[in-house]
Order: sequence, then C-alpha cells, then structure tokens
Amino acid sequence: MQHNLIVSTPSAYSYPLLVKQLLIHSLSLYGDQEISYRGEMRYTYRDFRRRVGQLASTLATLGATHGSTVAVMDWDSHRYLECYFGVPMMGATLFTVNVRLSPQQILYTLNDAAADIVLVHPDFVPVLDQIRDELTCNPRFVLLADGQAAPQTDLPLAGEYEALLADASPDFDFPEFDENTKAATFYTTGTTGDPKGVCYSHRDIVLHTLTTATSLCSPRDGQRMHREDVYMPITPMFHVLAWGMPYVAVMLGLRTVLPGRYAPDMLLKLREQEKVTFSHCVPTILQMLLQSSQDGTQDLSGWKIIIGGSALPPALCEAALARGIDIFAGYGMSETGPIASLAQLPPRVTPKDRADEVRMRCSTGRPVVMVDFRIVSEDMQDLPRDGASRGEIVLRAPYLTQSYFKKPAASEELWAGGYLHTQDVAVMGQDGFVQIVDRIKDVIKTGGEWVSSIEVENLITEVPGVQECAVIGVPDAKWGERPMAFVVRKPGADVGAESIREKLLSHVDTQRISKYAVPEAERIAFVAEIPKTSVGKINKKQLREQAA
Amino acid sequence: MQHNLIVSTPSAYSYPLLVKQLLIHSLSLYGDQEISYRGEMRYTYRDFRRRVGQLASTLATLGATHGSTVAVMDWDSHRYLECYFGVPMMGATLFTVNVRLSPQQILYTLNDAAADIVLVHPDFVPVLDQIRDELTCNPRFVLLADGQAAPQTDLPLAGEYEALLADASPDFDFPEFDENTKAATFYTTGTTGDPKGVCYSHRDIVLHTLTTATSLCSPRDGQRMHREDVYMPITPMFHVLAWGMPYVAVMLGLRTVLPGRYAPDMLLKLREQEKVTFSHCVPTILQMLLQSSQDGTQDLSGWKIIIGGSALPPALCEAALARGIDIFAGYGMSETGPIASLAQLPPRVTPKDRADEVRMRCSTGRPVVMVDFRIVSEDMQDLPRDGASRGEIVLRAPYLTQSYFKKPAASEELWAGGYLHTQDVAVMGQDGFVQIVDRIKDVIKTGGEWVSSIEVENLITEVPGVQECAVIGVPDAKWGERPMAFVVRKPGADVGAESIREKLLSHVDTQRISKYAVPEAERIAFVAEIPKTSVGKINKKQLREQAA
Repeated sequence: MQHNLIVSTPSAYSYPLLVKQLLIHSLSLYGDQEISYRGEMRYTYRDFRRRVGQLASTLATLGATHGSTVAVMDWDSHRYLECYFGVPMMGATLFTVNVRLSPQQILYTLNDAAADIVLVHPDFVPVLDQIRDELTCNPRFVLLADGQAAPQTDLPLAGEYEALLADASPDFDFPEFDENTKAATFYTTGTTGDPKGVCYSHRDIVLHTLTTATSLCSPRDGQRMHREDVYMPITPMFHVLAWGMPYVAVMLGLRTVLPGRYAPDMLLKLREQEKVTFSHCVPTILQMLLQSSQDGTQDLSGWKIIIGGSALPPALCEAALARGIDIFAGYGMSETGPIASLAQLPPRVTPKDRADEVRMRCSTGRPVVMVDFRIVSEDMQDLPRDGASRGEIVLRAPYLTQSYFKKPAASEELWAGGYLHTQDVAVMGQDGFVQIVDRIKDVIKTGGEWVSSIEVENLITEVPGVQECAVIGVPDAKWGERPMAFVVRKPGADVGAESIREKLLSHVDTQRISKYAVPEAERIAFVAEIPKTSVGKINKKQLREQAA
Repeated sequence: MQHNLIVSTPSAYSYPLLVKQLLIHSLSLYGDQEISYRGEMRYTYRDFRRRVGQLASTLATLGATHGSTVAVMDWDSHRYLECYFGVPMMGATLFTVNVRLSPQQILYTLNDAAADIVLVHPDFVPVLDQIRDELTCNPRFVLLADGQAAPQTDLPLAGEYEALLADASPDFDFPEFDENTKAATFYTTGTTGDPKGVCYSHRDIVLHTLTTATSLCSPRDGQRMHREDVYMPITPMFHVLAWGMPYVAVMLGLRTVLPGRYAPDMLLKLREQEKVTFSHCVPTILQMLLQSSQDGTQDLSGWKIIIGGSALPPALCEAALARGIDIFAGYGMSETGPIASLAQLPPRVTPKDRADEVRMRCSTGRPVVMVDFRIVSEDMQDLPRDGASRGEIVLRAPYLTQSYFKKPAASEELWAGGYLHTQDVAVMGQDGFVQIVDRIKDVIKTGGEWVSSIEVENLITEVPGVQECAVIGVPDAKWGERPMAFVVRKPGADVGAESIREKLLSHVDTQRISKYAVPEAERIAFVAEIPKTSVGKINKKQLREQAA
C-alpha cells in the first residue's frame, strides 16, 4: 500500500539520515570540546571537523569517490576517528580491517572488499608486504604514523597521512545522497568458513546512534551516559565500529580520549589523567586492567564500563564492583550493529543482594529501545518468560545488517523467517533480563540431555584457584557427547580435577545442573591458556581440534 | 548518485520507522506500567495495547482503512492516547482537531482534511450540531464519554467509544507500510488566512521521538527526563501531538497521567496524588498553577516543566523556581514537529547568578541533536554568534513538515532555499543560546530604527504592578510606526503610564533599548486582558485591529 504518503514541496529538504548529520549538534554547541590521543595530542571538535575535510580532500586526490572502499589498519587513534566520519561522509565505504586476523585472512578480506585505498599504521606494514603480491585489488597505500621513521617496505606508499592532510583543503563539499548508501563494512569470523562481510548504511549508523544514546542516557542514575562523561573506547575501533560508541560520544559532544594501542598501564594512566568516566571493553581487557591496578594506587570509582564480546563472569564483575567500577554487560554481534541489549538495572528495582545485582549486571541484558527481541522455538514461536525455556534469540531492529557481502545463501539463512538469527540460545525472565545459555552449535547433547557449556564454564570459574575455563562437547561412544573442560589455574594455585568435580557435584545436589553436566576427571584438562579468536572470544573450534 | 546502496537479502526485514515500533520496548519491559486518567481510571500498558487493538478493530468496522482520516475532538484522555497509536498504526491519519477554534474554523478544517470518522467528546457535540449541515465530508461520528448521559443531538452517532471497544477484537493485525505514510495532521492558525494543514509521517514521529528522548535524557542532572519520571501532559493533546511528548513517554515506558480537561486545582491534585515529575505547558497555564497553589499547601519541588507556545517571562520563571520547579523553555512550532531547541543549562556551566540562570532557562534554548539550526540574514548567510546580530531562524531536522496540505505556494515560501523558515527573528550567543527577539511581521520600524516588540514587552513586564503586556507597532505619520503597549495590571495595582515610561527610559540610559523603543504615554493602554489565540499566544492581529 503506497498511498497516503507525505508529499514534499519541491524546495523542502528531505533530511536523509547521514553520518555527517551526527556532527551538526556537536559543532554547533561543543566546538571547543576536546579530542585527545594518548595524552600526546589534543585538539578541538572544530579542529577535528577541519581535518575530516582535509582527509576527504586527500582521499579524493588519491582517486576516492562515491562508492570507493577505504580500508584502515590502525590502533585506536584520532586519525581512525577522522576516518569514521570523513570516509562515509564523502560517500565512500570505510572498511575497518581486523588487524588480528592472520595475513591470509586479511588478504582475503582486502580482496573480497576490493579496497581502493589502504591507510596503514607502520605496525601492519609487514603484513601488507607479505601479502602484497596476492592482492587482486591494487590499492593505493597511505602511512598512518605518529612521527616515527617510515618503515622499510616495498609498498608503493602514496604518502604519509599528516603530510597529505597538511596540503589538503579543509573545505571539502560533503554531498547529499541516499541514506541507504554503504557507510562501513567489517568482516565477521565467528563461524566456520571464510570471513563474511557485513555492511552498515548511513541510516543504520544514525539510528543505532540515536537508539543507543536514548538507552544509555535514560536510566535515572546507574549504568548511564550523560553529557559530562569523558569517553575512551577500549574496544578496538576496527571491531563493529567500536560498538558504534564513538558516534554516540561525538553526537553528544563528549570529551573523547583515543588510547592508541592497548597497554593496561597506558589505559589506566589515561583514565586517571584525562578523568575518563565511560568506556567499554571485553572481559579479558577488564581483567588485565584490574590486575595492573591491583597495587591499589589507582582509584577506579566513577568509571562506567560496558562489557561485551563475551559473557561477563560473575567473579570478574564482583572484582570490578569492589574497585568502584559501574560495570554492566551489553549484547550484540557484528550483524546487529551491534547493540541489542544492555544489562542496566531496571527502573525502581533494588537488587535483593549483591549476588542478585551481579546476576543482573552479568546478564545478556534487557532489550534496548526499538529492538524487537524474541526468544523462539525452532518453529519461531515465542517461548514463555520463565527463566527456563530455552530458545534462539532472533531480532528486528532499525540497524541490522541486511545481508552478507556476496554470500546470498548465508544471508538468507541469517534472515530465515524475517528475523535475524543470532544462533545464541537464551532464556528470558519475567523481568525482561535475557541470559544466554549457549551458542546453538556449542550446546552439548549427552545421553539425550542438553547441557549448556556456558553454565558449566561459569560454575567451574567459581572454584577457588580457577582463573578461566572453557567447556566443549567431545564425541563419546556411549553417551554421544560428553562435556570436556579446559581450565587455566590462577598463578600459584594447585586446584585439581577432583576438587572441581566435587564442586560441580554439589550443584547437582542443589539441582542447578544435571549430573550429566559434570565432566569425568580425565575430561578436565589443565592448560596454560585458552585459545581466543581475534576478537577475544573463546576459540571453541580450536579446542575441538585440540581435543580430537 | 544512487550506487553503493545496501542490498537486502529477500528475507531481511527492512524495519520501516513506524509508530507501532515505539511500543515494542515498553510492552516488552514495562507491560505492568500504569496509565491513568484523572485519578478515576487506571490500567496497564498491556491493557492499553489491547485497547489500541480494539480501537483499530472498531474503526475498521466503521469503514476506516489505510489512508482514512480519523478526527478526534477531546480533552486529554487515555482514549486520546489510544488514538495517538491505534489510528496511525492501522495506516489511517489521526487528525487532532483544535477544539479552541471557532465553529467556522473547525468546519473548515474538517472539510479540508476530509474527515471520515469523528470521535467527539460530549462537550464538543454542540459545535458539530451547529456546523453539521455544512460538512462536505459526511463522516461517521463516535461519542467519547466518561459514562455521562448521551447529549441531545441530531448527529447520527455510530456508537459510544467504550461500548464499541467492548465488542471489538484486540487482535487487530497492524500492517507494515511505507514509513513516509501520513500518521497525523494538525492545522496551524498562526498567520493570516485560512488554517493550514501540516502533516507528520510515521518516520517524522519516530525520529522526533528519538531525538527528543536523547536531548531530554542526556543532561547530567537538571532539566532532564529519565525512566523513573511520571509524566503528565499539560499541553492540549490536539496541539502538535502535545509536542510529541506522549510518544517519548510511552517509548521509555513512563508512568503516564492524563488530566482530562484542564482545571488548575485538578492538575495540582493529580500532580500530588500521582507524584507527577515531568510536564510541559504554556506560560498562561503555569501562571494559573502557581496562583492556585499560592496558599502554600502544595510542595511543587521535584516537578520538571518545559514551557513552550510563547516566551517564558523571567518573572514567571523566577516564581516557578522559587516554588521548586525545574522550569525551562522549549522552542518549536507546528511545522517543526515541534521541538527544535531546549533551554537546558549547558554541561559544566554554573550560572553566574540567579539572573543569569533565569536568562538561560527563559531563552529560546539551544538546538537539540540532529537539528541544523541557523540564524541567517535575508540572503541566507549565517550571522555572527555575538548575541546581537539579528536574523531569521531557519531549520533542517529529520522531522519537519514537508508541505502544507493543498497549499503549494505557502509550502514553497516555507521552504525557500531548502531551509524551513520560522519567521522568528533571533540572536545567538557564543554559548549557543538562542533568543527570539521578534516575529518577522511583529518587528516595529520607527524612524528608520528596528525595535523589538518582545524586548519592550519583557521590560514592561518587569515594572511592579504589571501582570502582562503586549506591544505592537501602530502607524504614525511622522515616524512611520510607533510602539504601542497594552498592559494588564495586577489585581489591586495602580501602576500608570508614566512609571512605565520612567522605567523604560532607565533602560535607555543603560543602552539596553533605544529611546525610539519607549512608547508615548498615550500609547500605553491599560486593558482588562490581552486577547490570545486558541493556542495561548498573544493575538497581535486582534490588537492591531483594536488599535486601528
């Protein structure tokens, strides 16, 4: 039904939702606000905007035009932030290269995305040297340096970022275009097979920014963002646009701190010096931060941190709370823009006790505004909100990826039935808190019983002396599958398989888990570390190979 | 340039921005939240959603379909709120009839909008009886009653709202359609000539809701909304969708109180009983509320109120602050959705003194997110932000009306040069605070000097004994125009023309106004009241007729 549509008078401005419009408010009211980099460089939003213009002029000189793909390989810098705006604003696509992938995977993604220009930090030049001959896309290369000497390379460098910008005009005329134009692309590697490209349109980014801002700003006090926060991302800027948070921060005009390459001491120093109040990171980084600051000289209170990427373990949450951090989980994935839910304490709710509070903060969260967040059975029926009925999380939101790049079958699978399938298995309580209990392909089926690998992991992590744990299903002649645990001991701890089993069996007594969920002693392996994917998730694929 | 667009896989959900999606979050998390009406009736969001379904079923039975126009003539009721959602959600257009217009103007708007169904409160049945024979659109009529006896009428009533809903199914299948579908229409009467219809699309409403929520929720503490607020509109729901605020409140899941017909005692009683914390109204209503509560039995602290419709006089702001109200102005108009700016204190700013604070709170405000808010010269050049350079406010925002209904010439004039022309003359300070100094057609030109009628009004209002004042330009043989003031004295006050002139001349001494701005004694008229338009603005057209 296309009738009854709004009719525009010819002179009316239709206001497509474009990335450039996220800057209007900040530049109008917060032009003097500061963006800084590693404590070494600081400039104002006004300077930032001028450099965004210079960047676009530079890229245009290098041949970039509407529809070009501009790849970035960098740590978290002000230059990266300039690319977040300048590249999409000129109508090109920002390709945030996952620099943690293997050289062969990086090669695959550069070729698949057909990069026209690659902006590269000296640290990643060796990778490009290594794969250069296999590049099918013949890009121009620009060096992103902090003043260090140019690296030894055979790459035909078109120039160095700062030198190029210095010669370029800030008065680039950013055009108007369709809001469904590709603004950014990223490759997800969560599953088997080649990395898959996901795209975010200008509209996706603007709507994710508005809904995230609304959801983060609206709590009365805890777990919220406000206009006086100082923002520092600690999720790599290549990773799902740093969860879209830099766009939120810049739209609201927040003072923004870019930390460069992550090093716990540097991050803690920046937090203290720059008075950072809002960050986000994966659990591994949080753990490193807490360990680095354990000498107690740094007060971490007043710091709000969203944890994502993988589940926030209750023990880590406790440790963060004890140090004064307002810590809470968030949930999403590359395909979802990413934020779909946030573990904010609900309005008018006082947790029963600390354990109840930790449960809420560590949960997958509650859906954010505008998100149609369902937990469904295999035939797409809504499951009861009883905290027990398990089903897949499927989503609709105004900013979900509409397809994988050049992967029609995977795209249709992703959107089967008109909802985006997350492959995460979860329960939802009456209070709207979602708890992921497994990945569809990580569920263990033993003797006809379903066992949640995540649940067993969490319980093992609670055993004194255990630092980290991963559980997978391994083939078993009798039971079909059996759980197997990989355990990292805390430094100096000597926890053994039997004390872990004892603890798990006590949870069987209280009916928290079934007896089938307890691994045999020989299926509890002590290891030096748990293999992780490039984005910090437990690499279960590799563990399965190890076990086999 | 239409290339480089996002490609959707066939099964993907494209998520048009529709009014129905503003309910997803609240129904998922706040289904038990309460909506109440005059303290007499209360139900949950879940009940609300069921009744919205029943309303759509009822309207469909009465012939409403995609593109139908459903007019509402009611006070602020839960039934009106049901119409805010149910009518647009079924693809019909909600026409909020301005019940304060004259019967002939109401007739004009009903005919112009071609109403298919009219939902009418008994109080407005007499008006319909009076104009019924001249209606060209032959609508069906539904009575919206609170259980009172049906009025004597010849209208062919199709039934009474509650009885019809009781028989209707809540399971209406709200369809998907283009986000640019008309959702609501309203007639603006600010200027000369017939009322002009403005339309809001579903997309307009959703984007206004998200940007307003972001702007209202993001301050650290003052002048903000949060999830634990209790909301009561005191701007008529017919008027620019009550400034779009009911959509914000419902999207965030706030407890919502509908006050019915406004009576100061009832509003104050509801505020106290229901613990209302967030409202919005015009200055006249605020003044009535303060007067009614002056016996001091009611504590008004903890109440946040946005003032709009006309300027917030500093004296009234002072009085509200003294009673504990967190009061601040907002700015917009029917054509702008409406909110374009809010007079929130900026981040990290502490007012110098109370006068400075009052100046900020009474100002036109600072632009909200996503709004391109310019003050321009006649040739559309940006004027300096010096607090002195006067120009017209022109706007772009993602929710501005795209045209007047069936008024192509006026529509083109509105959007001349691709910006919406507000006809408001303003200055902007370095701090981003805008101050309207006049309406383009209200500026007085005397002896070649421009005089701001608003500035003179504000200064006269400061004179002890003056309750209210309006200033217009009247023709003068020698000077071209001269200012003329209409003054309402406070009860019992005996302020005269000379003391007003004396006070104004003291402002000439301090160079706050020019000597040309001071009216002659014979051009200061004391009157019993200032005529107002139906939306509470000073009716300068009528004053000019009175003066002539």
